[in-house]
Amino acid sequence: MLKRVEVFTEGHFNDKAMGKLLVHDSPYFRVLNFNFKAGQELPIHSHDTDGQLSIVVLEGKGVFLGKDGQTLPAHTGDVLISDISEPHGVRAESDMRVLVTIAPPL
Amino acid sequence: MLKRVEVFTEGHFNDKAMGKLLVHDSPYFRVLNFNFKAGQELPIHSHDTDGQLSIVVLEGKGVFLGKDGQTLPAHTGDVLISDISEPHGVRAESDMRVLVTIAPPL
Repeated sequence: MLKRVEVFTEGHFNDKAMGKLLVHDSPYFRVLNFNFKAGQELPIHSHDTDGQLSIVVLEGKGVFLGKDGQTLPAHTGDVLISDISEPHGVRAESDMRVLVTIAPPL
Repeated sequence: MLKRVEVFTEGHFNDKAMGKLLVHDSPYFRVLNFNFKAGQELPIHSHDTDGQLSIVVLEGKGVFLGKDGQTLPAHTGDVLISDISEPHGVRAESDMRVLVTIAPPL
């Protein structure tokens, strides 16, 4: 069975905190959509477990956050790859939609 | 180590066939960018192995292809989830960039 999710329709923004949409969850990977209003962020964090994640910018711009204050540009079409155990985060400079894929899921 | 890839800069189009960029490969997942000129396609195919894949439309429009001639709209921000063993493909109706994530990698 193919499953299709329209993130730009189903993923919502929220004035209080980033909007979250669970796109998919399976033993293989978890796919989440986060929608940020300008200025909102996914605070830097990490989990002490094996695996990696990708963060794909679908729309908008901001910065990827790393340890020790590291920032990397996050523009539409940019992909960040990180170990799950490595500190990572996102801060939005415009309204911004990202897709996060975690493999294997936590 | 965080790794950042600018797909819109590093991923190229090709008049003869879709352009391919390997974004990331690890024991956890493989991430590929395919860039289609209008009319190009990733022909429907499948692999007899466990795992799932996602196809995310970063830019442009086309259709996702399934078995028995099934088509599903594929617009910017749309995500397709498929078992690796399930027939799947993509056909571009405009110039189109997609990101494919395979977990675990074949």
